[in-house]
Amino acid sequence: MLVGRVSHNVVAPTKHPGLAGAKLLMISFDDGSPLLLATDAVGAGEGDRVVVATGSHAVGIVAPETPTDAVVVGILD
Amino acid sequence: MLVGRVSHNVVAPTKHPGLAGAKLLMISFDDGSPLLLATDAVGAGEGDRVVVATGSHAVGIVAPETPTDAVVVGILD
Amino acid sequence: MLVGRVSHNVVAPTKHPGLAGAKLLMISFDDGSPLLLATDAVGAGEGDRVVVATGSHAVGIVAPETPTDAVVVGILD
Amino acid sequence: MLVGRVSHNVVAPTKHPGLAGAKLLMISFDDGSPLLLATDAVGAGEGDRVVVATGSHAVGIVAPETPTDAVVVGILD
Amino acid sequence: MLVGRVSHNVVAPTKHPGLAGAKLLMISFDDGSPLLLATDAVGAGEGDRVVVATGSHAVGIVAPETPTDAVVVGILD
Repeated sequence: MLVGRVSHNVVAPTKHPGLAGAKLLMISFDDGSPLLLATDAVGAGEGDRVVVATGSHAVGIVAPETPTDAVVVGILD
Repeated sequence: MLVGRVSHNVVAPTKHPGLAGAKLLMISFDDGSPLLLATDAVGAGEGDRVVVATGSHAVGIVAPETPTDAVVVGILD
Repeated sequence: MLVGRVSHNVVAPTKHPGLAGAKLLMISFDDGSPLLLATDAVGAGEGDRVVVATGSHAVGIVAPETPTDAVVVGILD
Repeated sequence: MLVGRVSHNVVAPTKHPGLAGAKLLMISFDDGSPLLLATDAVGAGEGDRVVVATGSHAVGIVAPETPTDAVVVGILD
Repeated sequence: MLVGRVSHNVVAPTKHPGLAGAKLLMISFDDGSPLLLATDAVGAGEGDRVVVATGSHAVGIVAPETPTDAVVVGILD
């Protein structure tokens, strides 16, 4: 998993029906890794330092019906 | 997921039968990440700023029969 | 798999229920690769040089119910 | 997916039985990304500009019994 | 897949039971990509130039019960 920070919410006016209701969070990383767009699973919001899981195993558990490849699974203090 | 821009359509005269009918979009990224070729799931076109999902979980939901590894799942305004 | 070193434990006050009870270890790499957060499967602790497996196949075997994408599967002397 | 060029065929005198009969193509990329070794699914050859799919979803459709992680699924003119 | 060279064997005194009996090979790459630790499936040894497959599809075929994410599937001359 990666630790990053929620930069802002992203609104996609057009999206796959499987993403309906999903909150899309843009995640930035301190080490300059490319920005990642993740769906939220823990109520994270702008400015939160978060844990992001990628990979089909993790995403399949957290968001079995959602076509996402990255999910916010934790919030650090 | 990644946010990129549709650079152009790609036509492959020879392709695996599973890609028949798939629209192939070349995606470029502002941060200089390598170009990615994605199949379209939302009617995206040249110049659109889009959300691209990779990973078997997301692709399996959006394009269960298509041998692709990246799908355009959203269009940003 | 990757060989890295356990930098420290990470506590996430808010997390997905599937991570309840999981020990989160921050892994650093000698070659300067980005830090990775992994769940522990072998009792590793701070300072240990460890083997980290990623990928849904490996994680699915070691942590079938946990939404993680990286697991510590070995400790080197 | 990625667009690259077939650099040359690779012969592996010793290989896992699941790769018997598989044509191994070394793929190079214009942007200097690391070389990738892919199995062929469309009759590609040296010098062809090709589409390469990675990821378990795509590979599982094209080469269900072959232990490969990258398949050539298209040839560009 | 990637073509690399077996640098040395790695012994992990503590490891997940699923790795019992697995031979762990450290793989280095000419292009300076980060070192990778792979399990062996073809009898490769130190100094051999090898083909390494990653990805759950390939690993699942070659090592269905082993929590690894990279397997040596071929030896080049």
